[in-house]
Amino acid sequence: MTATTAISRRSSDVSDLRSRLFVTRQLTLDLAAPLSDADATIQPFDDASPAKWHLAHTTWFFETFVLRDHVPGYQPFDERWAFLFNSYYEAEGPRHARPRRGMLSRPSLDQVRAYRLHVDEALDAAFASLPPSALALIELGINHEQQHQELFLTDILATLAANPLEPAYAEAGPSPCYAIEPLTYHRGRDGIVEIGANGDSFAFDSETPRHRIFLSGHQLANRRVTNKEWREFIAEGGYRTATLWLSEGWDWVCREEIQAPLYWGRNETEFTLAGRREINPAAPVAHISYFEADAFARWAGARLPTEAEWEDFAASADPNLGNQLDEAGSAMPRPGGGMFGDVWEWTQSAFASYPGFAPVEGAVGEYNGKFMCGQFVLKGASCATPRGHSRASYRNFFPPSARWQFTGVRLAQDA
Amino acid sequence: MTATTAISRRSSDVSDLRSRLFVTRQLTLDLAAPLSDADATIQPFDDASPAKWHLAHTTWFFETFVLRDHVPGYQPFDERWAFLFNSYYEAEGPRHARPRRGMLSRPSLDQVRAYRLHVDEALDAAFASLPPSALALIELGINHEQQHQELFLTDILATLAANPLEPAYAEAGPSPCYAIEPLTYHRGRDGIVEIGANGDSFAFDSETPRHRIFLSGHQLANRRVTNKEWREFIAEGGYRTATLWLSEGWDWVCREEIQAPLYWGRNETEFTLAGRREINPAAPVAHISYFEADAFARWAGARLPTEAEWEDFAASADPNLGNQLDEAGSAMPRPGGGMFGDVWEWTQSAFASYPGFAPVEGAVGEYNGKFMCGQFVLKGASCATPRGHSRASYRNFFPPSARWQFTGVRLAQDA
Amino acid sequence: MTATTAISRRSSDVSDLRSRLFVTRQLTLDLAAPLSDADATIQPFDDASPAKWHLAHTTWFFETFVLRDHVPGYQPFDERWAFLFNSYYEAEGPRHARPRRGMLSRPSLDQVRAYRLHVDEALDAAFASLPPSALALIELGINHEQQHQELFLTDILATLAANPLEPAYAEAGPSPCYAIEPLTYHRGRDGIVEIGANGDSFAFDSETPRHRIFLSGHQLANRRVTNKEWREFIAEGGYRTATLWLSEGWDWVCREEIQAPLYWGRNETEFTLAGRREINPAAPVAHISYFEADAFARWAGARLPTEAEWEDFAASADPNLGNQLDEAGSAMPRPGGGMFGDVWEWTQSAFASYPGFAPVEGAVGEYNGKFMCGQFVLKGASCATPRGHSRASYRNFFPPSARWQFTGVRLAQDA
Amino acid sequence: MTATTAISRRSSDVSDLRSRLFVTRQLTLDLAAPLSDADATIQPFDDASPAKWHLAHTTWFFETFVLRDHVPGYQPFDERWAFLFNSYYEAEGPRHARPRRGMLSRPSLDQVRAYRLHVDEALDAAFASLPPSALALIELGINHEQQHQELFLTDILATLAANPLEPAYAEAGPSPCYAIEPLTYHRGRDGIVEIGANGDSFAFDSETPRHRIFLSGHQLANRRVTNKEWREFIAEGGYRTATLWLSEGWDWVCREEIQAPLYWGRNETEFTLAGRREINPAAPVAHISYFEADAFARWAGARLPTEAEWEDFAASADPNLGNQLDEAGSAMPRPGGGMFGDVWEWTQSAFASYPGFAPVEGAVGEYNGKFMCGQFVLKGASCATPRGHSRASYRNFFPPSARWQFTGVRLAQDA
Repeated sequence: MTATTAISRRSSDVSDLRSRLFVTRQLTLDLAAPLSDADATIQPFDDASPAKWHLAHTTWFFETFVLRDHVPGYQPFDERWAFLFNSYYEAEGPRHARPRRGMLSRPSLDQVRAYRLHVDEALDAAFASLPPSALALIELGINHEQQHQELFLTDILATLAANPLEPAYAEAGPSPCYAIEPLTYHRGRDGIVEIGANGDSFAFDSETPRHRIFLSGHQLANRRVTNKEWREFIAEGGYRTATLWLSEGWDWVCREEIQAPLYWGRNETEFTLAGRREINPAAPVAHISYFEADAFARWAGARLPTEAEWEDFAASADPNLGNQLDEAGSAMPRPGGGMFGDVWEWTQSAFASYPGFAPVEGAVGEYNGKFMCGQFVLKGASCATPRGHSRASYRNFFPPSARWQFTGVRLAQDA
Repeated sequence: MTATTAISRRSSDVSDLRSRLFVTRQLTLDLAAPLSDADATIQPFDDASPAKWHLAHTTWFFETFVLRDHVPGYQPFDERWAFLFNSYYEAEGPRHARPRRGMLSRPSLDQVRAYRLHVDEALDAAFASLPPSALALIELGINHEQQHQELFLTDILATLAANPLEPAYAEAGPSPCYAIEPLTYHRGRDGIVEIGANGDSFAFDSETPRHRIFLSGHQLANRRVTNKEWREFIAEGGYRTATLWLSEGWDWVCREEIQAPLYWGRNETEFTLAGRREINPAAPVAHISYFEADAFARWAGARLPTEAEWEDFAASADPNLGNQLDEAGSAMPRPGGGMFGDVWEWTQSAFASYPGFAPVEGAVGEYNGKFMCGQFVLKGASCATPRGHSRASYRNFFPPSARWQFTGVRLAQDA
Repeated sequence: MTATTAISRRSSDVSDLRSRLFVTRQLTLDLAAPLSDADATIQPFDDASPAKWHLAHTTWFFETFVLRDHVPGYQPFDERWAFLFNSYYEAEGPRHARPRRGMLSRPSLDQVRAYRLHVDEALDAAFASLPPSALALIELGINHEQQHQELFLTDILATLAANPLEPAYAEAGPSPCYAIEPLTYHRGRDGIVEIGANGDSFAFDSETPRHRIFLSGHQLANRRVTNKEWREFIAEGGYRTATLWLSEGWDWVCREEIQAPLYWGRNETEFTLAGRREINPAAPVAHISYFEADAFARWAGARLPTEAEWEDFAASADPNLGNQLDEAGSAMPRPGGGMFGDVWEWTQSAFASYPGFAPVEGAVGEYNGKFMCGQFVLKGASCATPRGHSRASYRNFFPPSARWQFTGVRLAQDA
Repeated sequence: MTATTAISRRSSDVSDLRSRLFVTRQLTLDLAAPLSDADATIQPFDDASPAKWHLAHTTWFFETFVLRDHVPGYQPFDERWAFLFNSYYEAEGPRHARPRRGMLSRPSLDQVRAYRLHVDEALDAAFASLPPSALALIELGINHEQQHQELFLTDILATLAANPLEPAYAEAGPSPCYAIEPLTYHRGRDGIVEIGANGDSFAFDSETPRHRIFLSGHQLANRRVTNKEWREFIAEGGYRTATLWLSEGWDWVCREEIQAPLYWGRNETEFTLAGRREINPAAPVAHISYFEADAFARWAGARLPTEAEWEDFAASADPNLGNQLDEAGSAMPRPGGGMFGDVWEWTQSAFASYPGFAPVEGAVGEYNGKFMCGQFVLKGASCATPRGHSRASYRNFFPPSARWQFTGVRLAQDA
């Protein structure tokens, strides 16, 4: 999931925007509250980032594209930090190599907090006089920071999981205990439908333009695959049966010795943000790769939905409901749930441009477009997605082997 | 490009099939005629195969799926060879590791020729009494072998290119010298169109079922990008401008120090099956990766066509025309040409299943389906494609960094 | 440099031992004083360790081999930590993988300090009643911890060097400015000499037994190679002349693009524990690999000394003189200096066992012996070596490409 | 084992030299007789070379250093081949990358034979008028080619072992069946001894100068370790006991999953030049690495001999006796045997220069000296060593993990 560019802010007036900005900025700080400087410094693997880096990078985004570009006389907090906290914007010059982000014990977490304060105060002071183009970048920056809030949680989960002591990020109460709803399928619409952002609210460039697409007969499952069902897949040799897997997926299973979802351990436990816990059989399976989702579907005599099938199916669902992120704490998938929340759902659709897609001009245009290769689309939202961030047209994407996000699966079938 | 499964042979009667079988078998032998045993043994890199391996693997296919399974009393030529020459059929048991194919100095080229003769004679003897299911596998085997004929040529080109002495595979006359047709765009059809195999002739499983799809307004170039245009791209810094490239493509360019198409060398020459030659500016550029095709299109203010745009556009073209493979020799792209021949054309479409797609039962079903991840579709045909092998619905596919095939690019635009 | 085993403590009475123990323990804490929790957590590369790990590992050594094994009723601080802080003692069970030491944000630096206090108090309480075998392990533990003090400084230098902000570990005054002594050679002794520990004081097992060896005619330089001389080597193409280098060294130079000592940067500066500073031309060159030392010697028409030549030459020098570590601060090589201090000196001798060498029994015997492969001996002491730790018979060792230690070179010649 | 430089040919008159030259040249051709062009083309791994390459490289050596440099008007066979067949002589210019030697299907084996003929005829024609310096290079070239004869056999063994069909290089009769001599130890000489080439005959530069060295009390085993003893080592968990191994060796065992000598397989068989055969329990174990030899010695309560101990011990043995290479065929270690023949014997001595060692001037000086890092000395000779090639002062050397040579072990102890 990566930053993208704003295309609309019709629906929000400026005071609402200001409010949402600082609510978002505060939530990021709250997420960091349980962490020590050292916790916030570690990079658990190349594709993840240290917590401190997320805090600083999201701030750099506002400092660069809003303050530097639109606020005369703004003094950067530290001119050397642009090199450290630019993520991948080639147009913004050279930058610290991604796999070296874990080398930054300095600046300290406190210094990064001071950086955030400096930028927040400057945003606050300048807000009233920002031009519309800057306000659009504020909107983009909010959404960008919300994406990093989710990454913050999944990266810190990976960081703590790398520690043999298995420290918990935060406490969590006992998991609710629900019966599992029987699996049924609902028929989706055939024929021409429209997908993509409808212009009612903010969306990233890759969700546009809204366009027509033809759907063949199909049906989608009423709920996500559960941990209980995943155990059956394991028990029946799912991870040892080559013919269930994509060729590249089977290579991955053999090479990485994959035998279960990412954080599953012995004695039917899994590692979570609240530490090691018993696996809840009724909860949707999480932390599975595209390869695993696809193999499971084949084993189950089903398939993954396409992005368009999912999006049209979810068009009438309320994206603000469900188990999503409202405040700092141990986000965790829960039993039940609808189209949004708990886990992102893998689709069989490669992340590609929509007909007529054009990236925004300038550095902020280096967003979704350049990742349209080797990635699959995920739809919905997870327990770590800030509520209000997602919508039916939202296009999350990851490579097929990634599984440190809260990723799950909903089955589909031809009809 | 990988073997696939037959779904139809309505249009060919048995005697035609028999004739096509042995014509195909003979062409493979002819392709090997210029090679020494050592030439045929080398594996230039992991994804390529030795020439000898192609000769034996295509034979193993007939021996296994036709003779072993349908001809009572057939004695395999050598029971140990199944281990050596199975490519990736998990259902057929363990096999020699792909990157170790170049370790097989034995069996010798002559022994492999003897193997071919043994199997051809058995096929000939059994032909009259083969059941329809076996005839369908013969049809599949012919198409499978034709795919390997193209790989044979591209792999031997890579093999000879790895030799500092730069030996030629075969002689070739001077390149024809044509004026370059000015670049224009033709508008394609909007709205619902049908793509996929129409059932008139043999097709692979991944081309089915024929289905409806919605096309937005678009236009396609009248011809492929030429070597001359590619030189301009290089001269204007195309390979040094990060913002033209997909993120993963830019990593590839930097890591592999890519600066030109695969076989281009000093002094405006390129290495070909006929040895080192002057680059023909009017010929379509070849041996470019998806990453390069995509970056070029962006540089040119255009984009790559989708598979459906290309297929609908080519529906009325005759797939048997153009510069394709008729006999052994130095296949080479030539100036001019239509939708088929010279070079395969990259599309922006990921290789994925069609609505309602179902792989064939049994080992031969381990074909296209398991490669539906991380690959892009190429359409048309190249100078190394056996004439008669391709059609508008044909779906060739390769990973985005592959470029040892004869791969080129036709531009498209929204309209 | 790795922990080793005690063979003698004849010369120290118990109260002196106790005093030295707590002086050593305190110095380690002092070395950590300038570091944040995050500084102390980072592992800059696989062969280095986080500062926090050094603090804990040296403590684990006392806890395990002294308290656990010799103090009835001792309660370990945290039973899970043995897994984290065992370095390589196979006999002590499984342990955290070395390249994953940088994943430990927990325990925090403060917790590790509490661990040190817990163990120190237990050592203090038990000291009076420790049996002689435990006192020998105390002596070993002191020497072991002194080795880690040096590694602490070189690892933290590497850690801070990995940060583009180039933070300083501690302040340092201006470098003294001396004239460079002209290079002369002194003839060493020929014939049979004795080398190895003489039994007067503590020594590691690999220094024993003292034994006879035959020396051919030779002479050693009066001082180390200086930065000024190294610049001449660079200016005359030393790093670009294959014939100066060992074959493996030349591969290393090409692959790693080596062009200067490790921390040298632009504008004749180098990165040091005191931050970026101007290179002092009169100081001995530091942070060079064996490969570089050997190539330089060849360029200079000389060679590296053997271990025995060096040791016999240094036999009458006082190992307690020179620029060595007395207190926490920015250790740095200085101009002038004798056989001990400033930089360790590479010898051409592979690290191998002495005739009659036998490792100590038990886990503490897993020390020097198991590293007798692929390592070269360094003699003397560096600016980061705790004063009193070294002696003429001391055998430091590192692989030929290592250069993050304070390593330099003294030339030798046949005579 | 690598080419080195001549220092003496006092004992051979010119006609003897001529005779030895062509006998040597012929033996190389004989060794190649059983091979197909394809067999001779394969490079089984980076450190090995194709048989064809050995044939050409040894010829290039004579062409370059004798004919080109000393025979006016000599026309090289093909000027492009110097690039292909230079091994590592930096002074001779750029060359084909070592790991790419297996890419050379051309020149063919027949062309390489023609190359040999061309050079042999030129050597023959020029022989009478060659100056002494050229004759010294002939002597060097003979010894160089003998080294490559041994490598030829070990590399072709590795090549055939990489083929699942396990073809035999040549037939061999049944192994002789001897009782195993009981293991005893013989005391070697203490005090000052001389080692190194004594100037009576040809020797490589690294064997010089002869020099004095001090030996401590020691004893050597009367015979090599047998396959039977090695089986006991395996049965008692030798490969699973970390404390028996050097640290780097244990990493190697775990990473490469080493469980037995290189070519040992199921059912107590091993792959040999004569194909798969039953392991002869009385024969000396072969194809073991230094790591294995060292671990075995530790398990046996012994140690490896030093080079000097071995050399002094062997000084009175006749290096021309024993199972060495007399003619083309399936070389194989046999039971019994003395200090020379069957297997090279690992010593604990790192390959380093002798006091006063100076490489020869010019390109031929790029021999032993540049490999004095990371290698251990092996003494004696193997079943693949051309008889007459070795002597007590001979210093073979390989890295500690190498085991595709005929390498074994003789135990030693302190006394």
